[in-house]
Amino acid sequence: MPQPPDPFESSEDKARIAGLSDGIFAIALTLLVLELRVPELANGLSLAQARSAFDQELLHLIPRLIFFALTFYVGSLTWLSHHRIFRHLERYDRRVLGLNLLFLAFISLLPFSTGLLSHGDLPEAWWIYCFNIVALEILLAVLFGYALRKGFLEAQIPIQEHRRYQVRMLVTPVVFALSAAIALFNLNLAYFVPLLLLPGFWWVGRSSPQN
Amino acid sequence: MPQPPDPFESSEDKARIAGLSDGIFAIALTLLVLELRVPELANGLSLAQARSAFDQELLHLIPRLIFFALTFYVGSLTWLSHHRIFRHLERYDRRVLGLNLLFLAFISLLPFSTGLLSHGDLPEAWWIYCFNIVALEILLAVLFGYALRKGFLEAQIPIQEHRRYQVRMLVTPVVFALSAAIALFNLNLAYFVPLLLLPGFWWVGRSSPQN
Amino acid sequence: MPQPPDPFESSEDKARIAGLSDGIFAIALTLLVLELRVPELANGLSLAQARSAFDQELLHLIPRLIFFALTFYVGSLTWLSHHRIFRHLERYDRRVLGLNLLFLAFISLLPFSTGLLSHGDLPEAWWIYCFNIVALEILLAVLFGYALRKGFLEAQIPIQEHRRYQVRMLVTPVVFALSAAIALFNLNLAYFVPLLLLPGFWWVGRSSPQN
Amino acid sequence: MPQPPDPFESSEDKARIAGLSDGIFAIALTLLVLELRVPELANGLSLAQARSAFDQELLHLIPRLIFFALTFYVGSLTWLSHHRIFRHLERYDRRVLGLNLLFLAFISLLPFSTGLLSHGDLPEAWWIYCFNIVALEILLAVLFGYALRKGFLEAQIPIQEHRRYQVRMLVTPVVFALSAAIALFNLNLAYFVPLLLLPGFWWVGRSSPQN
Repeated sequence: MPQPPDPFESSEDKARIAGLSDGIFAIALTLLVLELRVPELANGLSLAQARSAFDQELLHLIPRLIFFALTFYVGSLTWLSHHRIFRHLERYDRRVLGLNLLFLAFISLLPFSTGLLSHGDLPEAWWIYCFNIVALEILLAVLFGYALRKGFLEAQIPIQEHRRYQVRMLVTPVVFALSAAIALFNLNLAYFVPLLLLPGFWWVGRSSPQN
Repeated sequence: MPQPPDPFESSEDKARIAGLSDGIFAIALTLLVLELRVPELANGLSLAQARSAFDQELLHLIPRLIFFALTFYVGSLTWLSHHRIFRHLERYDRRVLGLNLLFLAFISLLPFSTGLLSHGDLPEAWWIYCFNIVALEILLAVLFGYALRKGFLEAQIPIQEHRRYQVRMLVTPVVFALSAAIALFNLNLAYFVPLLLLPGFWWVGRSSPQN
Repeated sequence: MPQPPDPFESSEDKARIAGLSDGIFAIALTLLVLELRVPELANGLSLAQARSAFDQELLHLIPRLIFFALTFYVGSLTWLSHHRIFRHLERYDRRVLGLNLLFLAFISLLPFSTGLLSHGDLPEAWWIYCFNIVALEILLAVLFGYALRKGFLEAQIPIQEHRRYQVRMLVTPVVFALSAAIALFNLNLAYFVPLLLLPGFWWVGRSSPQN
Repeated sequence: MPQPPDPFESSEDKARIAGLSDGIFAIALTLLVLELRVPELANGLSLAQARSAFDQELLHLIPRLIFFALTFYVGSLTWLSHHRIFRHLERYDRRVLGLNLLFLAFISLLPFSTGLLSHGDLPEAWWIYCFNIVALEILLAVLFGYALRKGFLEAQIPIQEHRRYQVRMLVTPVVFALSAAIALFNLNLAYFVPLLLLPGFWWVGRSSPQN
């Protein structure tokens, strides 16, 4: 059932796809904060007791705050990739829309899998979190590769530049897959693996102009 | 009280209607994830106990995750239909706006009716869920039929193509109405009826170019 | 400190104001659904007991569902007014932005004041709900009147038509103010006063083209 | 690794950055309302008892309502600044995107830090709240200063006007930093310090046209 690819008939088409995507990104990143809720303090505490109980609760929030920051950072990077891909996309078909929606489903799961991490140091929670990130990054890379192969991207950009970007898009999933593997042996070490994102992007970016 | 239909005075008009719609779609699809929350584990568990309790909770989430995926899938398909209709819409009147808002009310109910399904296998919950989906699909089909009859759609697209799309829009409500009927006799069987969506779209799409 | 009114320098300016507004409308209308949550059923119920408990819970939701529909309806009408005003707005100043943000604050309170209604039949809850609706409608009417007086609206539309629309915008706040007054004497009667919206719009609309 | 700054290739690019930003603003400001939830009343109360309990709960909400209004006000002012900056932005690079995303992370934390204030009068809560506001205002000022230094802003606006706006952007962080300092000695006094925003804006605005 061969179909000619659907060009964006107007910039408005692209605006709606971007609008739904940005909406889901914005909501998923903002719902993360619901995990940071401080429980109500018991009634009838003196001020000193209340302050002490409150400080305790805040201390317990620190790991959640770090996971919030990590997810917000990864989500932001992913939004930047999504932004870049759709900026250069000139045509699309139903498969691009479908891949984008599947990608968005995993974005909308981020508050759930980030929430799992607040149950203490359980390898299962970290595996699900890593899986979520790996899955969404791979889906976006597949969408990009498909659009590239089908010639949906602007012709004026040299193909090598797109290829380089494809490599760049693999940094995040590789780092989180590595972290999931390390969590088999040592969860505390695995938590630090995402720090490899920074040298990873630097290393991939050495030879390529970032844009 | 005959009124001339309101043309989109600028693309910005259409952008706002699409903006509100995309916002409600984005939020409804993202709020689904709030049903996936894992309850806090009891304090004072050993690591092995915590892992075991956590795994139990995750297993209990699997049905909810499947319903999340189903609603996200149906919601995505519906967004694609909405996207396609508004893409070809050139004029509108207050009735189009009214039907769209009523349609959006049922979209915003999706997290509620999906949430009902997490109370165990109750036919009532499935009926409400099916009713919600049938209602919103019918409303969108009515909006499309009304716009078609009033001549609000782009003239350059042959009418037969719009007619074929109208048939296509009936696949989802027919499948969920069938599933609700089967739930009268056998709820477990009814859960599998939405799988008919895939052959249904294929069967309807045989003779029609999808776009 | 007289300032020249700020024209929209590009359609993009107006798009952002509309974008923030549509976002808050979309979220406020969708958060309403969080009030409709069915509580978890007790464990260890037989299927018949679970169905019976679930049906009871659903019956208790019916008033909330009606209030959800009412708020969604009023919110939708208000969005239509907002849409119409900004469609004809050609210039704005900081006061328009300020009034719009204050208006949006009351929109974002709608899930709260609708939620209050789920605490049983308390006149206080209905007063707050009515006050919220009256306040936001009045703010929008003030914004419209200010823009009209300052000449920010498109010149090609006759002033009488704008005046007629201003009258139309008073229907909703008058109806809800009346309902709040009646709640002093009879709350059950007050609940039915919003039904006056329909004849109210019809009566105001008799002599005026709606657009 | 010098890179030429990325111009907005089309207005659509800017629209997406604004779209994500507006989405996060809209959601953060609307989620504030979740802190205003009235707890369910006990069952089996007489009407008089229910009214009295409800009134008590509403009275307890008043401080939260005031903090809601304060955060909505500050958030709105910040949105106006963001709106103004991006309106005049003609080019951007990855650093602008990065600063914007970091800024948005602090916007998305607003419901959390506003929520902390509902735990009674604890200086820690107020410090975190003030820190959140100071941090996001500073980030936006840094973004603006960077864009100014790099020449990303429209050339036709005189530089002195941008400089005046930069001073204006410091009013909010200075007021909240002052309030946090005063909370070291007297929390109740600190709560009133944000009232200085109004004379602060007036004082800064004396010599500058606001736009």
